[in-house]
Amino acid sequence: MPIPMHDISQWYNEIVEKAGLAEHSPVRGAMTIKPYGWALWENIQRPLDEAFKATGHQNAYFPLFIPLSFLAKEAQHVEGFAQECAVVTHYRIHTDSQSRAVKPDPEAILEEPLVVRPTSETIIWHTFKKWIRSYRDLPLLINQWANVVRWEKRPRLFLRTSEFLWQEGHTAHATAEEALQEAHRMLNLYADFVENYLAIPVIKGRKTPTERFAGAVETFTIETLLIDGKALQAGTSHFLGQNFAKAFDVRFLTQNNELEYVWATSWGVSTRLIGAVILSHGDERGLILPPRIAPLQVVIIPVWRKEEEKDKVSAYAHALADHLKKKNIRTRVDDDPQHRPGWKFNEWELKGVPLRWVVGPKDLEEQTVEVVWRNTNERTTCNYQQAIESISTWLENFQKALYQRAQERLNRHTHYIDSYVEMRRILEEKGGFVLAHWDGTADTELKIKEETGATIRCIPLEAESEVGACIYTGRPSQQRVLFAKAY
Amino acid sequence: MPIPMHDISQWYNEIVEKAGLAEHSPVRGAMTIKPYGWALWENIQRPLDEAFKATGHQNAYFPLFIPLSFLAKEAQHVEGFAQECAVVTHYRIHTDSQSRAVKPDPEAILEEPLVVRPTSETIIWHTFKKWIRSYRDLPLLINQWANVVRWEKRPRLFLRTSEFLWQEGHTAHATAEEALQEAHRMLNLYADFVENYLAIPVIKGRKTPTERFAGAVETFTIETLLIDGKALQAGTSHFLGQNFAKAFDVRFLTQNNELEYVWATSWGVSTRLIGAVILSHGDERGLILPPRIAPLQVVIIPVWRKEEEKDKVSAYAHALADHLKKKNIRTRVDDDPQHRPGWKFNEWELKGVPLRWVVGPKDLEEQTVEVVWRNTNERTTCNYQQAIESISTWLENFQKALYQRAQERLNRHTHYIDSYVEMRRILEEKGGFVLAHWDGTADTELKIKEETGATIRCIPLEAESEVGACIYTGRPSQQRVLFAKAY
Repeated sequence: MPIPMHDISQWYNEIVEKAGLAEHSPVRGAMTIKPYGWALWENIQRPLDEAFKATGHQNAYFPLFIPLSFLAKEAQHVEGFAQECAVVTHYRIHTDSQSRAVKPDPEAILEEPLVVRPTSETIIWHTFKKWIRSYRDLPLLINQWANVVRWEKRPRLFLRTSEFLWQEGHTAHATAEEALQEAHRMLNLYADFVENYLAIPVIKGRKTPTERFAGAVETFTIETLLIDGKALQAGTSHFLGQNFAKAFDVRFLTQNNELEYVWATSWGVSTRLIGAVILSHGDERGLILPPRIAPLQVVIIPVWRKEEEKDKVSAYAHALADHLKKKNIRTRVDDDPQHRPGWKFNEWELKGVPLRWVVGPKDLEEQTVEVVWRNTNERTTCNYQQAIESISTWLENFQKALYQRAQERLNRHTHYIDSYVEMRRILEEKGGFVLAHWDGTADTELKIKEETGATIRCIPLEAESEVGACIYTGRPSQQRVLFAKAY
Repeated sequence: MPIPMHDISQWYNEIVEKAGLAEHSPVRGAMTIKPYGWALWENIQRPLDEAFKATGHQNAYFPLFIPLSFLAKEAQHVEGFAQECAVVTHYRIHTDSQSRAVKPDPEAILEEPLVVRPTSETIIWHTFKKWIRSYRDLPLLINQWANVVRWEKRPRLFLRTSEFLWQEGHTAHATAEEALQEAHRMLNLYADFVENYLAIPVIKGRKTPTERFAGAVETFTIETLLIDGKALQAGTSHFLGQNFAKAFDVRFLTQNNELEYVWATSWGVSTRLIGAVILSHGDERGLILPPRIAPLQVVIIPVWRKEEEKDKVSAYAHALADHLKKKNIRTRVDDDPQHRPGWKFNEWELKGVPLRWVVGPKDLEEQTVEVVWRNTNERTTCNYQQAIESISTWLENFQKALYQRAQERLNRHTHYIDSYVEMRRILEEKGGFVLAHWDGTADTELKIKEETGATIRCIPLEAESEVGACIYTGRPSQQRVLFAKAY
């Protein structure tokens, strides 16, 4: 059942907190990730980390603090991040002898202020200078799992928080072609992951110069469409050209014995992906989690009326759970006597567990189990052996059904529009993706943004070229671009 | 072969950098963990994380920044950490219009400064207040993997860095007994891990009040003895009593419907463990890594003289590697044509890979392999099938041999001393652990520290009580305590 769209924001905040994913912290804009939310993040990290390693990347770890002067070395970069930097200025606190108040110690001011990393290009390229001497050291393929800080004016759990967790890949290459290839490779890896694990279809594209990462030559993105018709940038991959190599003087000796600047990429996805999952699949009863990342795939709830039935039914539930665990299905039995079955049904629906198995005295007698699908609310009773045999198929089908539903929504809300009036109407009334012609100028892009609130999410990579007229100026255009209001 | 003790510090720094574990960063006191060092950390994290989960703990994540007022709530706690806090005071930077210098924006000063977490008790107990209502919410068993910052005056890679990575467990209980039990349980978990995975024997004990964690009622520790005769605290577990519950007003409704303050523990181990591994097992040729955590357990090096032998020998090496990988042995073939075998032998010895397999044309012909043990330099040639069959046993034996050697060193350098003169002489000449009687006063503890440089590492938990006279004052004592110079 659909969520009432007028209070989607309230629905989102409630679900995130009630399902035990995260909560606001006393530090403005920062969140506390609760155990259930963290388990989800672990299930996102693991397959991503494996995919990075399988493509030859190595993990490393660089300092949290970046000297201010490093950030300042790449002009666009510092301009892009200046507005949202947390700055460390003191290295000690002390108790004021008069007021007894605890304060930064005025005797302990850092010679050079340190920025808490908003992203790590500068500290990493400073380090790469030491690591790269010749073509033999290339490509250098590094990834880091870390926390970063970007001061947020309008924070939103998972979607936009002052501190967030992410991975950032940073690679160095001998040629522009190879670096561009890497940027594409990682974009495709992200797209595959988001589609196959999070069950969210994405549109791959290039960002316009206005929307590029600060310091990039080209930014690639995967854009998703959420249930409220807004777009979310789910991951980006940047071709950095030689910008950072030049800013940090990183050159390598080629096979021809010449010194050349190195070519670079960087790419990242963050805890924001959890926000994408919630806002792609959730419904009025709460989360719906894709089985491949769900912390629990099956919850088994024993129900009984008479006290003497309790132990037997509970034992049956645990026996079923053991079967499922042997098949590596993430399973939990909820036989907590403090809550009634109805309460539990609601609770686990809220938490988005894909399948609920309910077993009562009659099921025990007949060796059956009632299976309830979280996404469709469909229910069926079947023999327990059959249920155990079918479980992997059921979960796979669940995963596919989620993806398909999201894909259908994306199709339904993608509009090919050639009239600016119509575009404004759609963006205002329904939201969604608008594919329209654009004359390629930042000026037009800005005016459309000011008038409609929509930005160019990307210039799709897989679209056919199509001659047309800019929806705003009527000037010629070679391809439709993707407009949407975005998070 | 032993390391020359007079330049152990230089040896340590060289090994850490040359083996590719870590390096100093441009940010004072912070390090860059390089890929090989990170792989080691992953192999430490994984079994620890599994052990925490197996004992009922859940991971979560709390904010990096702690409002200064939170830190100030527990008086001892703030006093203990005041000297080493990095403080965030601004949330924006800007470019000075005149000098063009990039500076913290004077218009963007935080109302309340934020401390970069040196540990998370305060922010976590602020949050626990929301999570704990009644006895049903207890015990609450939380763990966090995170980076923390403690400004270091004398930084040392892994052993003492301004930023380090760790896990911090934080638990809440209904009774003092249960919390104490938890503190002991985690101490034992740490001891088992360090002994079984890192192959380092530990002494479990209580800290003296002087050496306690700031805010703890009781601090338990595992102490190790390194090759240079110095002690290293490898992990601590704290019984926090009701100190943080009172500071943050965290009470719960008991089964008798009364409101009581909650009892707490916290416990942590950090990237410092990597320093312990290096300084427990290394020798003059570099690292020696315990097989259970070694990123590579076997390196296979094909050697050839004539160019036409190269492909065949290399193929043989890869075939062997495939066999080992099927047995989940972490294996790598080094057939890089740019380096000679001798260079490779040195390189992989430096990196501490437990077993080196060398294969040449003769081995191919006879289906043999030369196996070289990193710890003893022992070498043997045997049939390849036998080698593959024996590999798990060899690695287990390697692990045991490392532990045993470390245990013997610990025994050899543990001295039961009853004369202060003798104690000073030993501490000066040889270092090591000194078990001596102490009168239990902070005053004596401080004087011994000032005169010898040694601190009381712990009051051993598993020692027999023994009546004696304080080595310094002659006053009565019930138990020997463990003195040593420490990192």
